[in-house]
Amino acid sequence: MTTTAQVISKEDLLKHWQGHRSLTRKVIEAFPEKDFFEFSVGGMRTFAELTSELLAIGAPAMKGIVNREVKPYDENTDNGKTKADYLAKWDKATEEINHYWGLLPVEDFSKTFNLFGQYEFPIIENVFYFIDNEVHHRGQGYVYLRALGIEPPFFWER
Amino acid sequence: MTTTAQVISKEDLLKHWQGHRSLTRKVIEAFPEKDFFEFSVGGMRTFAELTSELLAIGAPAMKGIVNREVKPYDENTDNGKTKADYLAKWDKATEEINHYWGLLPVEDFSKTFNLFGQYEFPIIENVFYFIDNEVHHRGQGYVYLRALGIEPPFFWER
Repeated sequence: MTTTAQVISKEDLLKHWQGHRSLTRKVIEAFPEKDFFEFSVGGMRTFAELTSELLAIGAPAMKGIVNREVKPYDENTDNGKTKADYLAKWDKATEEINHYWGLLPVEDFSKTFNLFGQYEFPIIENVFYFIDNEVHHRGQGYVYLRALGIEPPFFWER
Repeated sequence: MTTTAQVISKEDLLKHWQGHRSLTRKVIEAFPEKDFFEFSVGGMRTFAELTSELLAIGAPAMKGIVNREVKPYDENTDNGKTKADYLAKWDKATEEINHYWGLLPVEDFSKTFNLFGQYEFPIIENVFYFIDNEVHHRGQGYVYLRALGIEPPFFWER
């Protein structure tokens, strides 16, 4: 078997995503308990609500992709009432993402899947969407923290 | 020549990045002229300043990578005094990024380069940083727009 040059390997893309998820975890931790559930800017969602969106995407999406199981997007899971509850869910999702990632052959990234019965795109585009959507919402969390007078973690900390 | 499965091709990664850049362009356009240069939340930088950072990274970074030319990061370029000036710089950078991307062999993405004499990482990690950093700051721009009572473009518009 010869090795062909790749833009990025499957392993490195998972490391990249989990690095971002590790930074998002630090942002959750940086919020005061009350502000995590109550604070926002400009009528936007709280960081707890944004985190619920991220939890409804990452692990359930990877599971759906690997099992080719088209299930509707569901953000109504109860993630608990404390930051500690959300962090525990976050860590559980970390393990699930690693598990399902390992089951997805590299050949499948270019295949189309109808994620949540709504997003019919190549799997790689769905994966980039998970990462970009998280970076996007986390960037909003940075503004919330700054507006609260709290120094966010460095962007390059993973 | 046999084709080996790839997580993403070089062409698709450029399309992905330029799709993000197209969305950032729409966010610049969405700001009222004055607010682009003056508005911010929580003592953060204005969206004009954030855009200057993005302009100081994208095209200059790709040029540095392709030419293996280690030049310090320089955000002091005069990008003009109007949104139209910034948009013209943005479009020029779009062409430059396409140009230099075409000159970078896929074999080089795993090679290390000391970007701006500061960030010694595999080139793919630097490229992901350009994209993620843009998504991060653009997410902040979304909060500025919401705080101004302006509806931002849809995140999936590219």
